[in-house]
Amino acid sequence: MGRFQPFHRGHLEVVRHIVTGAAAHPLLIAIGSAEQSYTWQNPFTGGERFEMIERALAEAHLSNVVIVPVPDISRHALWVRYLEGLLPPFDRVYSHNPLTLLLFGHAGYVAESPPLVERGRFEGARIRDSLARGESVTELVPTAVDRYLHEIKAAERLRLLRPGGSAPGAAGHPSGR
Amino acid sequence: MGRFQPFHRGHLEVVRHIVTGAAAHPLLIAIGSAEQSYTWQNPFTGGERFEMIERALAEAHLSNVVIVPVPDISRHALWVRYLEGLLPPFDRVYSHNPLTLLLFGHAGYVAESPPLVERGRFEGARIRDSLARGESVTELVPTAVDRYLHEIKAAERLRLLRPGGSAPGAAGHPSGR
Amino acid sequence: MGRFQPFHRGHLEVVRHIVTGAAAHPLLIAIGSAEQSYTWQNPFTGGERFEMIERALAEAHLSNVVIVPVPDISRHALWVRYLEGLLPPFDRVYSHNPLTLLLFGHAGYVAESPPLVERGRFEGARIRDSLARGESVTELVPTAVDRYLHEIKAAERLRLLRPGGSAPGAAGHPSGR
Amino acid sequence: MGRFQPFHRGHLEVVRHIVTGAAAHPLLIAIGSAEQSYTWQNPFTGGERFEMIERALAEAHLSNVVIVPVPDISRHALWVRYLEGLLPPFDRVYSHNPLTLLLFGHAGYVAESPPLVERGRFEGARIRDSLARGESVTELVPTAVDRYLHEIKAAERLRLLRPGGSAPGAAGHPSGR
Amino acid sequence: MGRFQPFHRGHLEVVRHIVTGAAAHPLLIAIGSAEQSYTWQNPFTGGERFEMIERALAEAHLSNVVIVPVPDISRHALWVRYLEGLLPPFDRVYSHNPLTLLLFGHAGYVAESPPLVERGRFEGARIRDSLARGESVTELVPTAVDRYLHEIKAAERLRLLRPGGSAPGAAGHPSGR
Amino acid sequence: MGRFQPFHRGHLEVVRHIVTGAAAHPLLIAIGSAEQSYTWQNPFTGGERFEMIERALAEAHLSNVVIVPVPDISRHALWVRYLEGLLPPFDRVYSHNPLTLLLFGHAGYVAESPPLVERGRFEGARIRDSLARGESVTELVPTAVDRYLHEIKAAERLRLLRPGGSAPGAAGHPSGR
Repeated sequence: MGRFQPFHRGHLEVVRHIVTGAAAHPLLIAIGSAEQSYTWQNPFTGGERFEMIERALAEAHLSNVVIVPVPDISRHALWVRYLEGLLPPFDRVYSHNPLTLLLFGHAGYVAESPPLVERGRFEGARIRDSLARGESVTELVPTAVDRYLHEIKAAERLRLLRPGGSAPGAAGHPSGR
Repeated sequence: MGRFQPFHRGHLEVVRHIVTGAAAHPLLIAIGSAEQSYTWQNPFTGGERFEMIERALAEAHLSNVVIVPVPDISRHALWVRYLEGLLPPFDRVYSHNPLTLLLFGHAGYVAESPPLVERGRFEGARIRDSLARGESVTELVPTAVDRYLHEIKAAERLRLLRPGGSAPGAAGHPSGR
Repeated sequence: MGRFQPFHRGHLEVVRHIVTGAAAHPLLIAIGSAEQSYTWQNPFTGGERFEMIERALAEAHLSNVVIVPVPDISRHALWVRYLEGLLPPFDRVYSHNPLTLLLFGHAGYVAESPPLVERGRFEGARIRDSLARGESVTELVPTAVDRYLHEIKAAERLRLLRPGGSAPGAAGHPSGR
Repeated sequence: MGRFQPFHRGHLEVVRHIVTGAAAHPLLIAIGSAEQSYTWQNPFTGGERFEMIERALAEAHLSNVVIVPVPDISRHALWVRYLEGLLPPFDRVYSHNPLTLLLFGHAGYVAESPPLVERGRFEGARIRDSLARGESVTELVPTAVDRYLHEIKAAERLRLLRPGGSAPGAAGHPSGR
Repeated sequence: MGRFQPFHRGHLEVVRHIVTGAAAHPLLIAIGSAEQSYTWQNPFTGGERFEMIERALAEAHLSNVVIVPVPDISRHALWVRYLEGLLPPFDRVYSHNPLTLLLFGHAGYVAESPPLVERGRFEGARIRDSLARGESVTELVPTAVDRYLHEIKAAERLRLLRPGGSAPGAAGHPSGR
Repeated sequence: MGRFQPFHRGHLEVVRHIVTGAAAHPLLIAIGSAEQSYTWQNPFTGGERFEMIERALAEAHLSNVVIVPVPDISRHALWVRYLEGLLPPFDRVYSHNPLTLLLFGHAGYVAESPPLVERGRFEGARIRDSLARGESVTELVPTAVDRYLHEIKAAERLRLLRPGGSAPGAAGHPSGR
């Protein structure tokens, strides 16, 4: 479970480890905050992230993965129950978010943090920052994602959304909030 | 796109036709009203319907299908745009709902109604009614779905949810609304 | 205040009476349920209704009118306070809805039902029904509205939305709910 | 748990039975649909119902009762978890709604239907109907509730809200929906 | 399109330029975040802002302007489509918000940033700050708006809402959030 | 009215003052933001806070108090009217939030700030901070609350929720937002 803004090489390695490792098993990737887009935290729509992940998995010849975009609900205490109602059954949860691990642990799931691959480097916020500055991210995201980010002109979008960018009101609601 | 309450043999034949027919192409099944459950119109959760469909496709050896549960939004005029934001790109829409066909047609999609297989017989409402009466639906749903409906005690649930059932307030909100 | 689905000659006469009558005063037309559209009760978007009214007033050379689309809120007890927060000050409310009259009366407004012009004939539901049947409504709506309804193909839309229409699932949510 | 539209003698007897009976224990009364008001199904605000119940319990010298108004959420599958988050701990649920009994039963609670006292007679819908017709309900509701209903002019409100009442659009949203 | 918290002389000059300039055309002013009020970012209700603008336009003898308060929706990707559904047709969008310009540009509109009149000086946040400090804003807002701000005691309200004000919890939700 | 995250000795003294002082009168404690939980600002569910308060009042032998959890609404201008609809009648409001005092004052209530008991010391944010650091809060909260916080492992939860905690993404939405 993650937001995948964007899907990067760190994510890909975790997926590869789960579906091809010693204890290989099918994986369901839940795209969190799927209804969010065009903000600095969540620049890409749920559909764009779905597409990124699908292309990256195809490129890496990884199968046995189901992708589901999941819109947020505002009440944390209902989060586990909400996912149980929306998704097919699962018994193990991977996340780097300790709150998620806590909530699913309480509810009886095996909830664990996957081994990190150079976390400092492969981090959504840093990659978004590089994109906004016009820097190359070729070494940080799978090749298929890199190509896709060019297709949808991700750099231009991120430059506009960056908080404290040069544009007045740049990071807010389209109404200017 | 449909609600699949439950997923029946008519649905399965449409899927088979699309992914194995002369003009075979990949298919994305959007489960509508995915956040609804425990009502007469939508007795099964999005997750239960996901599971039903997945099992039925495995049983029928059909692949090239992606399943996505989609919660409703209340504003019809935003429906097309909302799905574009949540799902990976698509260019053709199948539905029996004329409003859906109209809205997607206006937006430039190929929107068509798939050929019906004995529609009178394979209809969600009729199958739910049979379940609520305790009748067998073995001939109406795929074998894997029939087995799953027993597992989750679908008949008991539907008996309680049926409007005009013997129980007072049976079809309403749990608060009694 | 009304929903104006569509704006008809009865509405126009009420407006004319208020802004040109003996006690003429400026009028604010609040379009209720402005966020609703593509349903049988509310087939036209807030914007389409805004456009209809604007054209009809121009055609009738009526001025001194401000039009505001107002999305619903779900809690009736907050309705008066909500409108006070969204609209410029007003001191008199016209409506045919007794609940509206009651709520605004309690809150200290002059709330009155404008004199009806052949109410049986000029009624939204009947006009929608005529449109859905493909009948002419030329005598029921202002000429400018009649022309606009043709422009946006209102008859086709209403035929699809009519409850109990020939199409399966015709009146529901686009997801088929 | 109930909606208490209005709180009647049948409700009062159930409360008396629970807090003074052989297995007497403290009771938490959850007022469902608390955010609803000014509709035929829910004419009284959550606060008015709170007041009714409090006065009736005082009149009957019943204590050991906590009253909590609970706004609805729209997703049935989250209902149990939602109440667990909003209310102090409880281990037993009383309701006449079979869906509520099912959902709480699944979640491990003792969920039971309290013995009915002349259910046909003491029923919210019938009492609302009597009020709307201007009939006396003195024998159907506790004396304190009867007095309160006069104070807030319940009869007038219900006459306006009754579906199919003489007034056009009487039962809808204040916007006329 | 803007939030107009409050409507100042910079806004007025833009409006004057559009409706009386060389390429004069009618203007629709959309008041964004219209449902927000009593926060530091949005201290004035949609109705108060409507009133301010109306008075300022009357004072400046500007006509050919329609004012519409527009409540926000939380999903940016739906923003353009939402406004199309709520407002009468338009073909050109003025905003200082680059995200708005991007989204409308993608959707095929002429989207442009109006020429700024001393932007540093005429800025909502600075004017709110001056009001909160009890300073005069006579030179920053139209005379009619200045008078209106006194009428509604804007200075007192802003002093309470200012983040980091002396009062504990001053800028939060009324519940203290 | 407050959020009571958690209920501390300062709160208890205010309650004691109101229900046992010279001008003793019944008190209704509204738990604000009752639907919030598992965030740094609102770590405890509405139900957990209800339980804390109930136990603390029992321990202190205080009666004549009614406790009601109140979910937030997002529109400040409707706050007073919303509470009037949800709660039994009241005529006096206690709060330390100046916006609450302003809004209720405008609406005709006696709205006052209760005398503070060493406010610097008894403050929710500071107590949460102490809990997150693993420090004892025995002297800051009633004994019954202290015991309850141990029961529900409050320290562990707060450590995870603290903004800027060591864990990546620790303070966000469970989806990682």
